Amino acid sequence: MKHYTSIQDIKNLDELVQEAIELKKAPFEHKHLGENKTLGMIFYNPSLRTRLSTQRAGFNLGMNVIVMNIGSDGWALEFEDGAVMNEGKAEHIKEAAEVISQYCDIIAIRTFPELKDRELDYSEPVISAFKKYATKPIVSMESATGHPLQALADLITIEEHKIVAKPKVVLTWAPHPRTLPQAVPNSFVEYMKNSNKVDLVVTCPEGYELNPEVMEGVTVEHNQQKAFEGADFIYAKNWSSYENYGQAGDVDYSWIVDEAKMKNTNNGKFMHCLPVRRNVVVADDVMDNKERNITIAEANNRTYSAQVVLKNILENS
Amino acid sequence: MKHYTSIQDIKNLDELVQEAIELKKAPFEHKHLGENKTLGMIFYNPSLRTRLSTQRAGFNLGMNVIVMNIGSDGWALEFEDGAVMNEGKAEHIKEAAEVISQYCDIIAIRTFPELKDRELDYSEPVISAFKKYATKPIVSMESATGHPLQALADLITIEEHKIVAKPKVVLTWAPHPRTLPQAVPNSFVEYMKNSNKVDLVVTCPEGYELNPEVMEGVTVEHNQQKAFEGADFIYAKNWSSYENYGQAGDVDYSWIVDEAKMKNTNNGKFMHCLPVRRNVVVADDVMDNKERNITIAEANNRTYSAQVVLKNILENS
Amino acid sequence: MKHYTSIQDIKNLDELVQEAIELKKAPFEHKHLGENKTLGMIFYNPSLRTRLSTQRAGFNLGMNVIVMNIGSDGWALEFEDGAVMNEGKAEHIKEAAEVISQYCDIIAIRTFPELKDRELDYSEPVISAFKKYATKPIVSMESATGHPLQALADLITIEEHKIVAKPKVVLTWAPHPRTLPQAVPNSFVEYMKNSNKVDLVVTCPEGYELNPEVMEGVTVEHNQQKAFEGADFIYAKNWSSYENYGQAGDVDYSWIVDEAKMKNTNNGKFMHCLPVRRNVVVADDVMDNKERNITIAEANNRTYSAQVVLKNILENS
Repeated sequence: MKHYTSIQDIKNLDELVQEAIELKKAPFEHKHLGENKTLGMIFYNPSLRTRLSTQRAGFNLGMNVIVMNIGSDGWALEFEDGAVMNEGKAEHIKEAAEVISQYCDIIAIRTFPELKDRELDYSEPVISAFKKYATKPIVSMESATGHPLQALADLITIEEHKIVAKPKVVLTWAPHPRTLPQAVPNSFVEYMKNSNKVDLVVTCPEGYELNPEVMEGVTVEHNQQKAFEGADFIYAKNWSSYENYGQAGDVDYSWIVDEAKMKNTNNGKFMHCLPVRRNVVVADDVMDNKERNITIAEANNRTYSAQVVLKNILENS
Repeated sequence: MKHYTSIQDIKNLDELVQEAIELKKAPFEHKHLGENKTLGMIFYNPSLRTRLSTQRAGFNLGMNVIVMNIGSDGWALEFEDGAVMNEGKAEHIKEAAEVISQYCDIIAIRTFPELKDRELDYSEPVISAFKKYATKPIVSMESATGHPLQALADLITIEEHKIVAKPKVVLTWAPHPRTLPQAVPNSFVEYMKNSNKVDLVVTCPEGYELNPEVMEGVTVEHNQQKAFEGADFIYAKNWSSYENYGQAGDVDYSWIVDEAKMKNTNNGKFMHCLPVRRNVVVADDVMDNKERNITIAEANNRTYSAQVVLKNILENS
Repeated sequence: MKHYTSIQDIKNLDELVQEAIELKKAPFEHKHLGENKTLGMIFYNPSLRTRLSTQRAGFNLGMNVIVMNIGSDGWALEFEDGAVMNEGKAEHIKEAAEVISQYCDIIAIRTFPELKDRELDYSEPVISAFKKYATKPIVSMESATGHPLQALADLITIEEHKIVAKPKVVLTWAPHPRTLPQAVPNSFVEYMKNSNKVDLVVTCPEGYELNPEVMEGVTVEHNQQKAFEGADFIYAKNWSSYENYGQAGDVDYSWIVDEAKMKNTNNGKFMHCLPVRRNVVVADDVMDNKERNITIAEANNRTYSAQVVLKNILENS
């Protein structure tokens, strides 16, 4: 593996999931791989799970870890080619990316979309520029439109918790007071449809269909109740409209996932990438039901999705 | 030791002090204990001594350390049960605490009181919630109403510097321009009265008596000069009123500790948890007197109080 | 080496450069030196190269590293002797420096000038106070008026890239929209004139002459074109006026370094400490010319300038 910024970087998805599950049994066995290597983690945005789990993954592999908050620890970067830099931005990404490459053996980046200009966000300006100008492997710790470490952790979690060979996995849109990115659902759909081990259905209100390119070949069911029938896993997540990009819109709070709805599933497990707003996205009766709620196991797998990715990159470099 | 959030977590206080003094002689001897273990340090509030000494303690034990500023690195947490989370708070402590437990082997937390609602502060909402929902040991790096790592360092320092078998230790209220927590004096009183090796007297202006529960069995002397007579150790600290909780009140600047007052002691040593405001809490003539001022040795012991605590937790887990 | 805050701390500059070049060939060979040692990095100001390269240098030497942003992680420090600290500043440098010395084996500090009072800035209040009150070695990661780690990296870079025995090195003032410190050019001049291996010329508009003490014995040429003739290395950097200290002044944008000017050199290499404002300080046609632009190699040498300094300090302590 050279970079890890999308599913395209994975040779065989289901094999990578198995490798992560193996790794989990003996997480410190590959510490020689990371010896004298430094993982640089660059944050444009706040983070809890990603910040902690990726550091942990680096430690488990024997790496040194440097964490840097661009903006507060450093300064704003210029991305435009040919810019006359006589205003707020002190450094061009061309230099920044190549310079960071001098000190770090792997560069992990967290950035969010601006949710104003769809084309701009989907061009992934930050991650693309780092891939273009850095001379070291780049790992996405969530980008403008994808969250591949989360989706990999999700698939690991489903593999570990499934009780039928090919479970029905339902991604359901859920209400939220803020306008959120499409990164998590985009990657979730991509990973589920590229695995041979799950059947995916997406349910959302009309007008909240995801990027058609991502959704190609995926079943959409606008009736949430119907979608839930027979589901083995319910994955809840809010996202803002792809069609009316960046617009807030009315939030339909009836799309909350609660125990009444979960009862229609096949004894379904509840998943969410977290952080989750209780009693908005999902009701307490689901979250506090230890049989249903596997979000903590899912969060735990963030360490191993990061670790299997870092391991593959280290082995390749 | 399972957690370390108050004196209740210690089996035998005077033995723990001796263990810390032993540890100090060979601080790197227990590095196997921390191998492959991660200490997560969560800060709600700024910190210098605690931030540095606790990291150092973790390193001395061979641990990896992750430091996270909640608020700037992450986001605000919801603590209320059953809350409909459709406003500013993005994650419930129930999830946050359990998720952090997935990545860290010990979780250390720093938080301050709001100093508005006494009952709320004394219920220790942050530390209690972490203890309730985390699945890993919790260490207080100062909470709303206690600072057990500081008090342990204080007792180690007294044990090292005493010249009589059972020294007279005086905790004196001192002036300060801001309204400060009661955490340090609360823990200081608890640790001193639970040690068999010191005699404690507390002196403060009327109206500044500490929590009666904490003070049970402790001598209070409102005349500062009288209290200082024959003292072997003077521990200065400002705290705001427990009675008129959260109220600023007039500050009596005559309570400053200066060399004239120190002359009334039994060649007493001066202690303070630091940071200290010179010429407000204590005069330069005391601070610059290298015979009297043992605050640096006291600060140094913050490493070993943290280290002996982490060591006991690691041995138990 | 005891401290490293200026060229005065170096016994033999050209030998230190050779030692750094040797170190670079086997950067992990001295990890025993840093075992159980902690490098504390204290930032008053944002930083990217310094933050990353100095951490990397510490890791390469087997050190543990603590990074702390004074101000956001901690609080403002008082520097005035005898101050009555009843306002914004919570801790005196006397305590802070000695306390940090309890937890760190080497203390590295980054601070900037205020650019208001020349005498104050040139007295180096922060670095001087740390040297006075700390009990551990102090390393400057850029101070008010000097940047000795950068200058050492610059000399290493010139030594590696020179094609004549004694190259002509030209430091040129360059335009910039903000009022910048003199730290980088001051140290650059000091290191170049103290090396036996380069010939230095400084070129700048009238009124932008550097500190006369620093410039003693150095050739100044106000005609930029003339200065560039036959140059082997062009080092561009903006600085604000020493004479009209702290004043913004009109910026002469014609001083930009571009390919047309570089053509007058002896196939000269382009250097800059970075971050650099493209098309203000230097044109894209220079920056994107991989033959000319050696700023990335220069940035890479920041690791080894820091590492050779830390190594010498560790060997001495």
